[in-house]
Amino acid sequence: MAAAATNRGSALEYASTHHDDFLNKLKEFAAIPSISTESAHAGDIARAAEWLKGRLSVLGATKTQILETSGKPIVWAEIPPAASQAVAENKVPTVLIYGHYDVQPVDPLELWESDPFTPTERGDRIYGRGVSDMKGQVVACLSAVESIQKTGGLPLTLRFLIEGEEEIGSPSLAESLERYGDLFRADLCFNPDTGMLAPDKPTITYGLRGLAYFEITVTGPTHDLHSGGYGGVIHNPAQVLCELIAGMHDGRGRVTLPGFYDAVADVGRAERESLGKLGVTEESLRRDSGAPGLWGEKGYVPVERIMIRPTLEVNGISSGYTGEGAKTVLPFKAMAKISTRLVPNQDSKSIRGMLEAYIAEHAPDTVRIEVRELANGPGLISPTDSREIRAMRNALAAVWGPDIYFRRNGGSVPVSGYLKEMFDMPSVLSGFGLPDDNLHAPNEKLDLGVWRRGIDAVINFLFEYAVA
Amino acid sequence: MAAAATNRGSALEYASTHHDDFLNKLKEFAAIPSISTESAHAGDIARAAEWLKGRLSVLGATKTQILETSGKPIVWAEIPPAASQAVAENKVPTVLIYGHYDVQPVDPLELWESDPFTPTERGDRIYGRGVSDMKGQVVACLSAVESIQKTGGLPLTLRFLIEGEEEIGSPSLAESLERYGDLFRADLCFNPDTGMLAPDKPTITYGLRGLAYFEITVTGPTHDLHSGGYGGVIHNPAQVLCELIAGMHDGRGRVTLPGFYDAVADVGRAERESLGKLGVTEESLRRDSGAPGLWGEKGYVPVERIMIRPTLEVNGISSGYTGEGAKTVLPFKAMAKISTRLVPNQDSKSIRGMLEAYIAEHAPDTVRIEVRELANGPGLISPTDSREIRAMRNALAAVWGPDIYFRRNGGSVPVSGYLKEMFDMPSVLSGFGLPDDNLHAPNEKLDLGVWRRGIDAVINFLFEYAVA
Repeated sequence: MAAAATNRGSALEYASTHHDDFLNKLKEFAAIPSISTESAHAGDIARAAEWLKGRLSVLGATKTQILETSGKPIVWAEIPPAASQAVAENKVPTVLIYGHYDVQPVDPLELWESDPFTPTERGDRIYGRGVSDMKGQVVACLSAVESIQKTGGLPLTLRFLIEGEEEIGSPSLAESLERYGDLFRADLCFNPDTGMLAPDKPTITYGLRGLAYFEITVTGPTHDLHSGGYGGVIHNPAQVLCELIAGMHDGRGRVTLPGFYDAVADVGRAERESLGKLGVTEESLRRDSGAPGLWGEKGYVPVERIMIRPTLEVNGISSGYTGEGAKTVLPFKAMAKISTRLVPNQDSKSIRGMLEAYIAEHAPDTVRIEVRELANGPGLISPTDSREIRAMRNALAAVWGPDIYFRRNGGSVPVSGYLKEMFDMPSVLSGFGLPDDNLHAPNEKLDLGVWRRGIDAVINFLFEYAVA
Repeated sequence: MAAAATNRGSALEYASTHHDDFLNKLKEFAAIPSISTESAHAGDIARAAEWLKGRLSVLGATKTQILETSGKPIVWAEIPPAASQAVAENKVPTVLIYGHYDVQPVDPLELWESDPFTPTERGDRIYGRGVSDMKGQVVACLSAVESIQKTGGLPLTLRFLIEGEEEIGSPSLAESLERYGDLFRADLCFNPDTGMLAPDKPTITYGLRGLAYFEITVTGPTHDLHSGGYGGVIHNPAQVLCELIAGMHDGRGRVTLPGFYDAVADVGRAERESLGKLGVTEESLRRDSGAPGLWGEKGYVPVERIMIRPTLEVNGISSGYTGEGAKTVLPFKAMAKISTRLVPNQDSKSIRGMLEAYIAEHAPDTVRIEVRELANGPGLISPTDSREIRAMRNALAAVWGPDIYFRRNGGSVPVSGYLKEMFDMPSVLSGFGLPDDNLHAPNEKLDLGVWRRGIDAVINFLFEYAVA
């Protein structure tokens, strides 16, 4: 391991003198509008995958593939350890770096201050769709790899799994992991998609919520009606949908789907106290969101509502006339997108049945209701004293200093749950996005100071994990 | 009156041999996409007004004007009585023919079987936006006038008030009636916008509901958020809006706005029984709407819910991501269009205050709520034994036979309320649209057999009213 240990310093040195090159690469990548939820962007999805494959080859991948799936393609690659390393030891560990090259839609476009696909620097930030979530994180990893490769080579084997449908809930990922299982095998998955609490708070995420996402369609009449001629006798599908949604929470902010809380794991006092010290407060949430006040399940403080409690959200709703001015229509149908975030011990596959039971109990017979599941993935919880988390803690501490923050994440990363379930592979989750990066919103940005430190942290992590 | 009485037969004869010409005129008029609610169609609004002005000049209008308003222009014209008539009598009555040249939007466009602005005959029907509501009714009146003018001239003075913003609730009409008051003065307004119950049921509408139409916007955070990071702590504006809408009806189907029913006039048993015989039944409403079942206020049969009871409808709702697939967004705002239909003695101007009181009582302080009023107009109720209604009854009976149907209409015709309030001018409301004409919906159509009879009925009515 002498060679590997020695070139860490040179790699960090290389990185410190190549930030402009790294940033140009990010600009190239983020200029590709690889929006996975809009089929019009299928060509851009393919371009983004090809761009990655090209970069990985340049960085020394001896094998690269764009894997066909039943959804969007997966970019796969393998980069071997330095020759000296391979000779010195028979077995070095393998780390699978996970990423996604797809991005969220950009609507409402009129709220962007610069074009979402013309990555634009303002101050020490760059603005554009995907710069934080997560093309910036992927490019940070590629930049760390470049820095190591240019200065002596890798201390371990790297594999890459960069998918193209994370932003739509990774619908075909589980199937692809089955299909290509051996390609993905590794000792550990490093997933830089979970961000940090603040620019000075390097963060490791040890828990993720699961996701079950649905589209509900309520249909009444066979066509739009005049609200004067039929209002008051035909049950308005928009009204029915509003009543169903209104009933999905009770007065205590709890989700009313039958059985929703049955499997929810209790969280001990020590962990709740530790989460309470992360700085996710009523004040920080109000400031970052701009909302006039907070809301949520009684009996839990805000950080607990996000990290240890399951939730249900309306992601979208649409019915009738929503253009300019007045149209006196009684709409024939109404649609809502609704998703639940799930915590340990809840089975994401069981939510659909609960939703259908709720609808069967509450829906009137004056309408027809259809439920489609659009995405589903399990949650995850990891021990905080493992080899990989110790390596990440050291790597972050080398850059930011000793105070490292441990949190659960309100979001969902389906891949981590799958890798655990299917290959018993642990994940270490971190990353260099910030809470105010406007993920999934207009004016998404990346803090470049944090990003440069993040590249150093990835370099450190690969060496730390190799020698741990 | 001898001359006037005599040329009725010639006029009917003329009409019977000119239906193809009349239909061609309707096709010209209905090909203009004069959608009032979409500002992109401002040029088409102007074209439709010019088309009407041109036709009215050809038909013998001695004065025609396109009146500027603070909204869409009004087409005004006056056609004098036949010279013989003017000599024979010092005073003939004046009838103001009301119409509107604007039409509803066409979305969802993909459900149209032929282009909405390429009026298309299939069988003895013509399909296109506005062919029934109400360009077909306007052209029926113009065709009747042509038939009389070509065969001896009018037995009375006609004025025309054809507005361009009925489909958006006539927001500037009251102001324009004030401004141009003298131009509109007449003994009676004939309004052919209220249609018939069935092809064999000529119908006179003696009551209309008023309208108050609102847009409600709920705003929480200042930008869209990630539903994993903020769900469960930020009050979702779509959820708040659904809860507000769900609470606007109680379990008996009654509107819960405070004071909503306070002024509602009771309706006597005789009238309720008479409305019960119109053939508007649970079965007919289910058939015409295609809905699996009916709904509504307990204590009233469906025809009463439409004709004598006030209602509240969701006309549209929109929030968050509503495109293809899954997007895990917590939307920063939600919007609904909501309208009430009002019955005699309710003051349409008072509804806004009730809605605001309801919101003040029920809205949480985690969001900001804005209410805008988009349209407002009073209702109307008329005695059924007046000169004008007798004249219309005779006119319809001359074409369809003696059984004439009297009903109230669930819809709203703001102009009739205004003319009554401002000039004490009565209206006679009839027309030749049918309940299954798909008003405000895709595949709007006009039954041409009924329409041809309607032209005869208008000819008859003008003579009947002149000699009554």
